[in-house]
Amino acid sequence: MDVTVRERWTTEHAALPASALNWLARRTGLRPVQHNAPALHSVRSSALPVEAAAALEAVVGEPYVQTDVSARAGHSGGLSYLDLLRHRESAELTAPDAVVLPASHDEVQRVLEVCVEHGIGVVPFGGGTSVVGGVSALRGDKAAVLALDLGRLASVVAIDPTSRLATLQAGMSGPEAERLLADHDFTLGHFPQSFERATIGGFAATRSAGQASSGYGRFEDMVAGIRLATPKGEWRLGVAPASAAGPDLRALVLGSEGLFGVITEVTLRVRPKPVLRRYVGYLLDGWERGTCVLRELAQSRHLADVTRLSDVDETDVSLALGGWQGDRLRDYARLRGIAEPCLLITGWDTSGKRELAARRAAARPVLRRHRAISLGTLAGKSWEHGRYAGPRQRDTLLDNGVCVETLETATHWSHLSELRSAVRTALADSLTTERRTPVIMCHISHAYETGASLYFTVLVPRDPADPFGQWQRAKQAACAAIVDGPLGTISHHHAVGVDHAPYLAGEIGEIGIEVLTAVKQTLDPTGILNPGKLISRS
Amino acid sequence: MDVTVRERWTTEHAALPASALNWLARRTGLRPVQHNAPALHSVRSSALPVEAAAALEAVVGEPYVQTDVSARAGHSGGLSYLDLLRHRESAELTAPDAVVLPASHDEVQRVLEVCVEHGIGVVPFGGGTSVVGGVSALRGDKAAVLALDLGRLASVVAIDPTSRLATLQAGMSGPEAERLLADHDFTLGHFPQSFERATIGGFAATRSAGQASSGYGRFEDMVAGIRLATPKGEWRLGVAPASAAGPDLRALVLGSEGLFGVITEVTLRVRPKPVLRRYVGYLLDGWERGTCVLRELAQSRHLADVTRLSDVDETDVSLALGGWQGDRLRDYARLRGIAEPCLLITGWDTSGKRELAARRAAARPVLRRHRAISLGTLAGKSWEHGRYAGPRQRDTLLDNGVCVETLETATHWSHLSELRSAVRTALADSLTTERRTPVIMCHISHAYETGASLYFTVLVPRDPADPFGQWQRAKQAACAAIVDGPLGTISHHHAVGVDHAPYLAGEIGEIGIEVLTAVKQTLDPTGILNPGKLISRS
Repeated sequence: MDVTVRERWTTEHAALPASALNWLARRTGLRPVQHNAPALHSVRSSALPVEAAAALEAVVGEPYVQTDVSARAGHSGGLSYLDLLRHRESAELTAPDAVVLPASHDEVQRVLEVCVEHGIGVVPFGGGTSVVGGVSALRGDKAAVLALDLGRLASVVAIDPTSRLATLQAGMSGPEAERLLADHDFTLGHFPQSFERATIGGFAATRSAGQASSGYGRFEDMVAGIRLATPKGEWRLGVAPASAAGPDLRALVLGSEGLFGVITEVTLRVRPKPVLRRYVGYLLDGWERGTCVLRELAQSRHLADVTRLSDVDETDVSLALGGWQGDRLRDYARLRGIAEPCLLITGWDTSGKRELAARRAAARPVLRRHRAISLGTLAGKSWEHGRYAGPRQRDTLLDNGVCVETLETATHWSHLSELRSAVRTALADSLTTERRTPVIMCHISHAYETGASLYFTVLVPRDPADPFGQWQRAKQAACAAIVDGPLGTISHHHAVGVDHAPYLAGEIGEIGIEVLTAVKQTLDPTGILNPGKLISRS
Repeated sequence: MDVTVRERWTTEHAALPASALNWLARRTGLRPVQHNAPALHSVRSSALPVEAAAALEAVVGEPYVQTDVSARAGHSGGLSYLDLLRHRESAELTAPDAVVLPASHDEVQRVLEVCVEHGIGVVPFGGGTSVVGGVSALRGDKAAVLALDLGRLASVVAIDPTSRLATLQAGMSGPEAERLLADHDFTLGHFPQSFERATIGGFAATRSAGQASSGYGRFEDMVAGIRLATPKGEWRLGVAPASAAGPDLRALVLGSEGLFGVITEVTLRVRPKPVLRRYVGYLLDGWERGTCVLRELAQSRHLADVTRLSDVDETDVSLALGGWQGDRLRDYARLRGIAEPCLLITGWDTSGKRELAARRAAARPVLRRHRAISLGTLAGKSWEHGRYAGPRQRDTLLDNGVCVETLETATHWSHLSELRSAVRTALADSLTTERRTPVIMCHISHAYETGASLYFTVLVPRDPADPFGQWQRAKQAACAAIVDGPLGTISHHHAVGVDHAPYLAGEIGEIGIEVLTAVKQTLDPTGILNPGKLISRS
């Protein structure tokens, strides 16, 4: 059956000025392309057995077992570049055989029982923002697979203001969580780029890290408790702020990407809503100096809550696309003796002027020593304004024939520059042709005492002859550079899904894969949960 | 065979003044006891098969397979009150059939292979400081069991000063680690009361937490990487400062108490050795006010590196045993309007006066608001001086007929006082008789944003008719209060071992036990590793 599905991917187009397209043409060789009409997709027919459908309807109610093409196609994948491309080409979409929307933990539990009984795969589905194939509707060895959409589990279960804990249902989105917590003057402080759509359960299942992770921690750092529905029954974890009662099994559920169970509730450490938020931009001279600043701030524990350092190339693009303001900043940098400007954004979430002043004062000696030039709050505000725009801009870039994708890793400080170079080289070698020159940008958005993340953004004119292969080869080259060279993790916050599964054994060992397989076998003996992800070798 | 073994338990007796014994007599009903001569122990004969002994000798060298009674008895248990009692009564010691001392990871690996082949149990043995039976030489279903003493694995493997990482072998003791790191101007900052004897591997295997955990974090927070020898082969984990590459499997090894493998190396985050360390004591009025101070400091992230709050009873004992200084402090408190003094010790590890001043200034508003009275640095220094004396004082107390033991838990702030009361009541009800009144003291030594630990110390005249049963019943009552009442963890930093194993399912669920069992089955299919601990139900 053919269908048009664009809603999930194109809700709000971010405009791209003509100057940006001109710049891309000069820099990458981009040529004007004809805007395609929305693609017509072929969606395989639902293979959900009638008896299974009836049993599911008995659990969640008839309106919440959806087998219409529109619902199924709308749950057919995540938001990676290749996912977006698939929705633009007239390819067959890997759609689930049904979308099921339970309304409670118990309904999730009973849906799993039905799926075990009927041998149906289950893809837990939150915001659908995975960029690594984490929500692809793969059937594995099952006759059918359903997307278990958690959108109806979106309530606050409990708030303990004394202990600063909030228990939220898994299907709650980032903005909804912040809105409901704000009623109690709390914030979670978790703002990944997927924030607008992604969910509490998804954050936990993928070990998400937000833009303010330097201040609020990674999502896993916030998790005090988890409620999980598994084929073996309910599993609750987390009774204390810290424990030595055997291994911390919450860590086994965090990052399990739906393979061990469906997260239905998460108890989270919350913090007071900041009273005064301040973003300040700086320019630093060169990548090495920039990483020194971040390392020294991280190791003295004086990082701003948001700390983000762009390399020379990313800064160059920001300035080039920044119009006259960009030109002015470039002139200013030159005037101040900065040969290779690197943009540093710092964001402070504070209880007021006193805390802001104290924390900025503590960071100042490091910034001064490395001759950071303050750009004031304008550059910071500009970044804040556009902090979630990335995913939307991608749509516009794709419309204009650009291959645009991101990938990320992390490593210890002593390997950071070497790893950045290795990944850059791998990407450049793979993507550069006589007619196409990639733009490869990198930034650090998560700094730790022992190391930092590296986040790469790639822009290159799409190869119309082989758009999928073009990126697949580049991604493979980058992943090989990460696992072969100066060791980095195959993902710092995008998770494993389908795309990184081939590289996981290189990081956690064959023994690690065996351990995860044994845990899955214990919790999901018939293998209904999220087939083909994380530990899949195929 | 009979043998006298006291060395491991009584190296340095801490003297106890006559005034303290008089106070105990008045307060608890303690009567003078006759000092026993060192007990004569019966130690079962070594059941190590000759072929196994030969194979082990081939791996580690003949001097490092020790089957003499003295070595075996010296590895027959940990340092719990009941362990100490066992060494004072003429009971049969549960001694291992041999003590084996490998010199490298590879030797550990090959020892495990020999043990699998010959069906011999293995108890990984570091400092032997477990207070929960974690190093008891249980045979499980094996014909023999050996203590795998890691004392010869005590080298620095690597130091990465840029990333602030140190890789240390597992058998290195706390003081040795600090000494070697100090050569590089680093510190680990991990100072549990077992510090003087316990080892890096033991800290990791039990999820230890040190006295300065508020500043340096729990031991698990410092672990960047782990090298493990398992019956299935070597397993290395940890390549980056943070990752989303599936679940964090390091968390499965941390706290695994030797059941999954033998930790041979740990890569740890280190920090600069502090330049200026300052301890300051305060008095606060009452437990509720005291916990408020800790909660507010923790939630505003202004805790001192060491933060320790004694309840009224513990403070009372400190003052009573503090001689004329104690009397003076009590008068001073009364004069300042403090009805129920609670002692707060804060310890600051800083880079110098400027940092010390800034951090103390940040904490001051909370202390002021709750009318904390500074005792200056004397009370702090006094605590620092005696910080590791507890285990040694126990020997003297035991000599004088005292039953002395500690137990601990943790819970969220909103349940903290209720849990403290429940445990106190359980202990008091169990231990109070017409002739014996227990002293039950409690302190918080580890505070977090969402909750805190509770550490209980109990002193009561020993029941000569049933010294083991007296404490076993009290401990059972306390554990029941922890798992039944306002939920706490069965251990905040002592681990599970034998003593807490019956309560683990109550905390992590039957599913949690099944998951741990599956992981063990994968890594240790023949079950040689540390039989009878953690997940054992018997």
